[in-house]
Amino acid sequence: MACERLYLYDTTLRDGAQTSGVDFSLEDKLLIAEQLDALGLDYVEAGYPGANPTDTQMFGEERGLGSKLTAFGMTKRPGRSISNDPGFQSLLSAAADAICLVGKTWDFHVDVALGITPEENLAGLKESVAAVVESGREALLDCEHFFDGYKANPDYALACANAAYDAGARWVVLCDTNGGALPEEVEAIVGDVVKHIPGDHVGIHVHNDTGNGVANSLAAVRAGARQIQGTLNGLGERCGNANLTSIIPTLLLKTDYAERYETGITSDKLQTLTHASRLLDEVLNRAPNRHAPYVGESAFAHKGGIHVSAVQKDPRTYEHVEPETVGNVRRLLVSDQGGRSNIMAQLDRIGIAVTKDDPRVALLLDTVKEREAVGYAYEAAEASFELLARRMLGGVPQFFDVDSFRVVVERRHNARGELVTVSEATVKARVDGETVMSAGEGNGPVNALDNALRKDLGSYQSYIDDLELVDYKVRILSGGTDAVTRVLIESRDGEGNRWFTVGVSPNIVDASFEALLDSINYKLIRDGAPAP
Amino acid sequence: MACERLYLYDTTLRDGAQTSGVDFSLEDKLLIAEQLDALGLDYVEAGYPGANPTDTQMFGEERGLGSKLTAFGMTKRPGRSISNDPGFQSLLSAAADAICLVGKTWDFHVDVALGITPEENLAGLKESVAAVVESGREALLDCEHFFDGYKANPDYALACANAAYDAGARWVVLCDTNGGALPEEVEAIVGDVVKHIPGDHVGIHVHNDTGNGVANSLAAVRAGARQIQGTLNGLGERCGNANLTSIIPTLLLKTDYAERYETGITSDKLQTLTHASRLLDEVLNRAPNRHAPYVGESAFAHKGGIHVSAVQKDPRTYEHVEPETVGNVRRLLVSDQGGRSNIMAQLDRIGIAVTKDDPRVALLLDTVKEREAVGYAYEAAEASFELLARRMLGGVPQFFDVDSFRVVVERRHNARGELVTVSEATVKARVDGETVMSAGEGNGPVNALDNALRKDLGSYQSYIDDLELVDYKVRILSGGTDAVTRVLIESRDGEGNRWFTVGVSPNIVDASFEALLDSINYKLIRDGAPAP
Repeated sequence: MACERLYLYDTTLRDGAQTSGVDFSLEDKLLIAEQLDALGLDYVEAGYPGANPTDTQMFGEERGLGSKLTAFGMTKRPGRSISNDPGFQSLLSAAADAICLVGKTWDFHVDVALGITPEENLAGLKESVAAVVESGREALLDCEHFFDGYKANPDYALACANAAYDAGARWVVLCDTNGGALPEEVEAIVGDVVKHIPGDHVGIHVHNDTGNGVANSLAAVRAGARQIQGTLNGLGERCGNANLTSIIPTLLLKTDYAERYETGITSDKLQTLTHASRLLDEVLNRAPNRHAPYVGESAFAHKGGIHVSAVQKDPRTYEHVEPETVGNVRRLLVSDQGGRSNIMAQLDRIGIAVTKDDPRVALLLDTVKEREAVGYAYEAAEASFELLARRMLGGVPQFFDVDSFRVVVERRHNARGELVTVSEATVKARVDGETVMSAGEGNGPVNALDNALRKDLGSYQSYIDDLELVDYKVRILSGGTDAVTRVLIESRDGEGNRWFTVGVSPNIVDASFEALLDSINYKLIRDGAPAP
Repeated sequence: MACERLYLYDTTLRDGAQTSGVDFSLEDKLLIAEQLDALGLDYVEAGYPGANPTDTQMFGEERGLGSKLTAFGMTKRPGRSISNDPGFQSLLSAAADAICLVGKTWDFHVDVALGITPEENLAGLKESVAAVVESGREALLDCEHFFDGYKANPDYALACANAAYDAGARWVVLCDTNGGALPEEVEAIVGDVVKHIPGDHVGIHVHNDTGNGVANSLAAVRAGARQIQGTLNGLGERCGNANLTSIIPTLLLKTDYAERYETGITSDKLQTLTHASRLLDEVLNRAPNRHAPYVGESAFAHKGGIHVSAVQKDPRTYEHVEPETVGNVRRLLVSDQGGRSNIMAQLDRIGIAVTKDDPRVALLLDTVKEREAVGYAYEAAEASFELLARRMLGGVPQFFDVDSFRVVVERRHNARGELVTVSEATVKARVDGETVMSAGEGNGPVNALDNALRKDLGSYQSYIDDLELVDYKVRILSGGTDAVTRVLIESRDGEGNRWFTVGVSPNIVDASFEALLDSINYKLIRDGAPAP
C-alpha cells in the first residue's frame, strides 16, 4: 500500500516555553533545535521574534537546520495595516523558513478578547496570511480555539479556516487551545473540516487537559489531518501539549499507522528519541518522568518474578514494542541483560573494542550502577562515562594530581562602603614532577577554583587554553540517607566541540571540582596529550 | 434521557503497588482506601491476600467501607483442585466483598507461561469463577492480555470471556496488560465482546504504554463496557495504569459522558479529587505531577499576559472546566510575559489592597520585569515576590542586618592521609541593636552559611527554629554579558507550610544567601514578628 506523508511539527521551543518555570536561553534553543533536526522533525518552531530578546536573536540569522525553522507570531493587530504593525514587521524580518500565525476562529473570543466584528477578523486573517506568502515564506495558520469555536459556531470557524487556506496557507492547523476536547469530538470535527480543505493541508495542535493529548492527535490523523504539532515530553502550559515523544513511536511502530503513513523519521533516527527526551530534561534541569511512554526509565522495567521470567523467555509476553527501537533499554531486576547491551553499545560508540564476555565489562556495568545509585548520571555526562570506561578498560594516564585546594568567599563593605563579595581559590597540584601552587579569583567559588586550577598545568597548559565552561547545572538529590549534590558541566573547545561531565558529593564545591577535573582529563585524552 | 450506570474500580493498592519503589504499609492502605471510599469509588481492590503479610492482614478483618473491598488473586493453579490450592484457599478466606481473579485469555501465554492446553485453561477459569460465586462473593475475572489475545485468536479470547460469564462472573474485565492497544482497536474489540456478553457485565483495565490509557478507557465505555478499572494518579508499573484522576472528571464534567452515564461520585465528592491525588503522593513521598490533568498545580495556571487578562474577563476563554469542580485552584503566574493583570491578581491573593491605577503598581511591574530580565523567576518564587511587593507597597521591617560573611571550603589530606573537604562560615549581623558574630560548619558552603546565619537571630530566633530548607535548585543563566546564577530555595515550617524564594548573583554563594534571607524574612512577616 502506498504511504501517505505525515508531517511532524515541534513547538517545544515556543509553546513549550509557556510552561511555568521554563525559560530557554539562546544556547538552550540552539541545542534543542539541533536535536530535533537530528530526530527528523519537519518543522521546528523556535520562538516568537519580537516578543523577547532571546527569540529575536534566535531568528537573527540563518541556523542551517534540515528542519524548517519556523517563527511564531500573531496575525496583524486589529485596526492596523500590515506595514504599520511593528509586531508583524519583526515577524516578516525573521530569518525563518516558515511563519506560523495564530488567529482567532471562535466568535466568542473575537468579540470578548479582540472586540472586533467577525468580518473584520476574517479579513485580518486573510491579509496576514497573504503577507506571509508574499514574503516568500511558507505560511501556516494556527486556528486558536478551533474546536470550541466549531462547537459554538461551526460556520464561522470553518469560514476562518477556509479564509486562511484561500489566502495561500500551506497548513491550516486546528487548535484545541483549552485542551478540553475529547477524541470522538476531534475525529468528527476534523472529518468535517477535510470536506472543505484537503487533509494534506490540515494540521492538529492539541493540549492535554483531559489526558487525551496523544489520543486527540491520533484521532485527527485518522480523520484526515496530515500535520501533527506537539512538544518533546509534552512540555507546555497547564497540562502540556500533545506529547510527540509518545506519538512518534506509535506512528512508526504500530502497524495501523506504520503501514499507512510515513514521516521524516527513519528507524535509525527513532533510536535517538530517548536521548532527545532526556536532553530536554537536562537543559531544563528537571527530573525525567520515569513512567513516560516509550522513553521513561521504567517504560520497560519489569518487577516481580513471573513477569521477569516470562520476559526472558519472550519479551512479547509483557512488552508491546522493543525498547531498542526508541533507544531505551529493558530493565530487569534480577539479571540486567539490557544493561550489558547498553554498555557494549556505548563502548562501541567510544571506540573501545572488547568482547561481551570480558569480565571487565561486568565490572564496569556494576560500577556504573553503583555510581548511578548514589547520584551520577552518565546518560547526561558521556565524557565522564568515557573516562570511567577508559580507566577500567583502556587505561588513562594520571596527567596531574591535585593535593589540596582552598576556596574563600567573603562579603564585606569595600572602601566606598558598598557591599561586595569576592571569591578566591588556591590549588596545590603536582605536574611534570613538580609541585605547583596557583591562586585565582572569580565571580564565585567554582569560577575561582577553575581559574586557579587552569592557571598552570605545566606541559598540558596548551591543551586546555581553549577549554571553556559553557554551562553548569546543579541538582540536589535526596536518595539514600543524606542529600547529595550533582553537578553537570558542559565544556566547549575552540572548534565548537561540546562535552558533558558529572560530579557528585555532599559538597557542591567538591562535586564541581570533580566534574571540572573530568572535563580537563577528557580533553587531554581526546587531544592525545602524552602521558607524563 | 435516562442515565446508564458506570462502575468505577480502583486498583491503586494492588496493581499500583507493582510500581518500582512503591511499597504500601497497612496504615497507608487503610488511609488510601478510606479516601477512595469518600470519593465514591464502587470497588477498592486493596491487595493480593496470601501474597505478602500486609495484604493478608488487610483482608484479615472487615473494614467497613462503603466501596466494595475487593481481593485480587490468580485462578487456581493448573493440575490442582480448588480445595488443594493453598493460594486459592487464602483468597476464599479473605474478608472481602468481591474477589477479582486474573486468568489467561491469550493462547500464546497459555502455552508459553502456563504450559497447559487451551481446554485445560478454559476449564480452570470456569471452575475458579464458580468457586468464588459459591463462596457468596461477587466474582470478577480480569482477562489478562485480552486485546493481544483477541488479535492473535479472537475465538479463543472470546471463549475465555464467555466461560467466566457463564460461570457467574459479575464482571468480565478486558485487560490490555502490555499497554500497547490503541483507542480504535479497543473500541472495535470491546464492540465485538458486547455482542456476546451484556455491556453491564464488561469492564476495561488498560495500561498507559502508548500514552492512551485514558483514551482507551473512554473508548471502551463508548463501545459498551460499564466498568472502568484504574488507579489514582495513574500509578502502576512501567508507564502506569489508566489514570482515574483524569477519567473521573471527564465522566462527570463533559456533556457527552455526563448526560449519558452516572457514577457513584456526586459533584460534592468530586471536589475531594485533588486532595485524594495529593494525599497519595504524600503517602508515597513523591513530588506531585504539576501538570497532571485536572488536579495538577499547573492545570489551571496561566502565564502569558494576554491569557491572564482574558481569563480574568471570562475563565472560559482559557479553561475547559472550572478548577473548583475538582477541588483545584486557578493560578495566575507572575512572569516576564505577564502584565498588570497578573500583578493585580497576585496582590489580591496576597491580601494587599491597592487600585489598578496606583502608580506603585506600575513601578512594581517594571521592577519585576527588570529583575526577571537579569534572572529572577518570581513565578517559581512567590514568597520572594510577596516580599518585593510588600517592600514597595506595604513596608517590610528591617528585622536584622548582615554586615559581612566569610565562607571557606578546603580540601586537604587529614591525619589518616584521606582527602576530606570541610566547609566553614562566619556571619556578622546586627540584631536587636547588638552586633552578633556566629560561626557554623556544613557539608557545603551554603549549608555552612545557613547554619551560621540561623545560629543566633536574637529575639527572632524562636520564629525560625522550625524553618527547614527542603530543596535547593541552581541554574546558570547566560543572558546578557556575563553568566549569573539563579538559586531557588524551598523552605518548610513545622506545620508543613512550604514557600519558595529566589536569589540571583554572578556568585552562587551570594545568590543562595539572598534566597536564604528572603526565606527567613518571609517567615518573620507571615508569623507576625514585631518590627525592631
